[in-house]
Amino acid sequence: MGDPAGVGPEIVVKSLMNKSVYERSNPIVVGDAGVMRKTVNLLQLSCVVNAVSQVSDARFEYGTIDVLDLTNFKGDLVYGKVSAEAGAAAFESIVKVIELAMNNQVDATVTAPINKEAIHIAGKHYSGHTEIYAQYTNTNKYAMLLAHENLRIIHVSTHVSLRQACDLAKKERILEVVHLLHDACQLFGIVNPRIGIAGLNPHSSDNGLFGWEEEREIIPAIIEAQKMGYNVEGPIPADTMFSKAIGGVYDGCVAMYHDQGHIPFKVVGFKWNETRNRMDVKGVNITLGLPIIRVSVDHGTAFDVAGRGIASEEAMSISIDYAIRMAENSTKK
Amino acid sequence: MGDPAGVGPEIVVKSLMNKSVYERSNPIVVGDAGVMRKTVNLLQLSCVVNAVSQVSDARFEYGTIDVLDLTNFKGDLVYGKVSAEAGAAAFESIVKVIELAMNNQVDATVTAPINKEAIHIAGKHYSGHTEIYAQYTNTNKYAMLLAHENLRIIHVSTHVSLRQACDLAKKERILEVVHLLHDACQLFGIVNPRIGIAGLNPHSSDNGLFGWEEEREIIPAIIEAQKMGYNVEGPIPADTMFSKAIGGVYDGCVAMYHDQGHIPFKVVGFKWNETRNRMDVKGVNITLGLPIIRVSVDHGTAFDVAGRGIASEEAMSISIDYAIRMAENSTKK
Repeated sequence: MGDPAGVGPEIVVKSLMNKSVYERSNPIVVGDAGVMRKTVNLLQLSCVVNAVSQVSDARFEYGTIDVLDLTNFKGDLVYGKVSAEAGAAAFESIVKVIELAMNNQVDATVTAPINKEAIHIAGKHYSGHTEIYAQYTNTNKYAMLLAHENLRIIHVSTHVSLRQACDLAKKERILEVVHLLHDACQLFGIVNPRIGIAGLNPHSSDNGLFGWEEEREIIPAIIEAQKMGYNVEGPIPADTMFSKAIGGVYDGCVAMYHDQGHIPFKVVGFKWNETRNRMDVKGVNITLGLPIIRVSVDHGTAFDVAGRGIASEEAMSISIDYAIRMAENSTKK
Repeated sequence: MGDPAGVGPEIVVKSLMNKSVYERSNPIVVGDAGVMRKTVNLLQLSCVVNAVSQVSDARFEYGTIDVLDLTNFKGDLVYGKVSAEAGAAAFESIVKVIELAMNNQVDATVTAPINKEAIHIAGKHYSGHTEIYAQYTNTNKYAMLLAHENLRIIHVSTHVSLRQACDLAKKERILEVVHLLHDACQLFGIVNPRIGIAGLNPHSSDNGLFGWEEEREIIPAIIEAQKMGYNVEGPIPADTMFSKAIGGVYDGCVAMYHDQGHIPFKVVGFKWNETRNRMDVKGVNITLGLPIIRVSVDHGTAFDVAGRGIASEEAMSISIDYAIRMAENSTKK
């Protein structure tokens, strides 16, 4: 459901108004049925909310929004407002959906935006969904994958300083993310994924002219990965790798640090909306390394437009599509 | 002219077959008239090469390619081959064009691709055009600006390791490039340029959570620049700044390091050509801080397609357009 005061409930409902979702999967919303009903009313949609207390009670019929009802939003719904009540409801919904997936009651999970501050004042000190998932699934080795059309980007490091990112570009970690990316691409349906590995330094250091991480860490990782049978190539200067990936040369890319991967992803997937003075966001964020499938929209709660019925469900629809594909291919394996 | 064995002569000739160039400027090629004649023959174009020994002898008529003839290519022309002869000819052409500009015989200069290895074996040890320009114009403080449509990106540092780039993100240097970028935007015809300044760390360090360069160097630079009257904003997380600039929010962007600026530039301006297995490049590279105007295509000699008549002159045409606009606005000042 995401944060009740954000666009989460709205984009969830809107994306479930697409009949093909029901043809391809059995979707169930985890959260507060009252919030979801308000959303349906707000949007004046011709669908009903079916509150259930267990997954097996869901109808899974187009036109019915099944909600595993946690009746967990205790406050008054004020769109765009940070509140402990909304944070608590969002948090509990996440914990519940993780539990369902861990118990095999659902095959994949998709998350809607939460507000970090709201989670925080609800007494839950996590920097985001990913950390909650890691803790509640007992996972140490995970990585963020961003996906938009041809671009599938995994990160060697994310929320650390650029100096620390240089220190974290280590052979072992690179091999770890190659493995995660390879498996993820296969879950997306790519049989023998071609993986590009970026250099850390400009021009991949121009043969050691500026920087040594390519020689000491990245190249050894690439040689090792090739020996292990991965279809990897690199180190590729980061400023051309993503252009090549967009052109279809690589199925997946390994970025050495947060901005190296996020810049190309957002240049392609984010469009500035001049009229609304905000970003329109496509693209999804997938946490790899978990024992369960987790896909998320890559945008926030958009408190400025929440409750106005104008939020685009596109990123949520793409996220659901990814979750379905991953669940299908995961079953096949 | 660029390296005779590369696509330089070809894209120069092709771009001069556009009549509007002659309506807006008086173009003259600096290099070897024999090489230029061969190029015209190769392309089977209906124009003549007019070899002159001084600028004032040029005709500046559409259909005539005026060449300030240095008769400086001594070898046999083998397309796609690295040679000392080609390197020497390319180097001498650059030195000559700089001299012409320094003596006000030309208002702006545009460079075609050279091959670093060829320059090297010709005994000229420069890492590129920029360094030759810096030395022959006696310039210490310069910066590389990349331009493509709405994106105009200047770099605080370029060809250094990522670790060194962190050290070079200093207040004084940031102010220097803000000044250069502001003036350049005015030369492009933007009266009051809005400038975005990127953070160095992801999320611009999230208020110091990861990294301190924003607080100690970048924010002080921004405050100082604002006091000086520059229309600057930041630090803006690099992964959204370029998407906003593409959307028209900023006229110019300050990138803290090479790949931070080059990645978005190439994602937008470089398109992978699957048929030809190579990049199609738009976008231009402008050296700021020089006493003269210098614009360059942002691609290389493309030895793999040289001599086949299939090179695209688009980047050269855009470069010439930039040079004309900058010269016009420079005169107005």
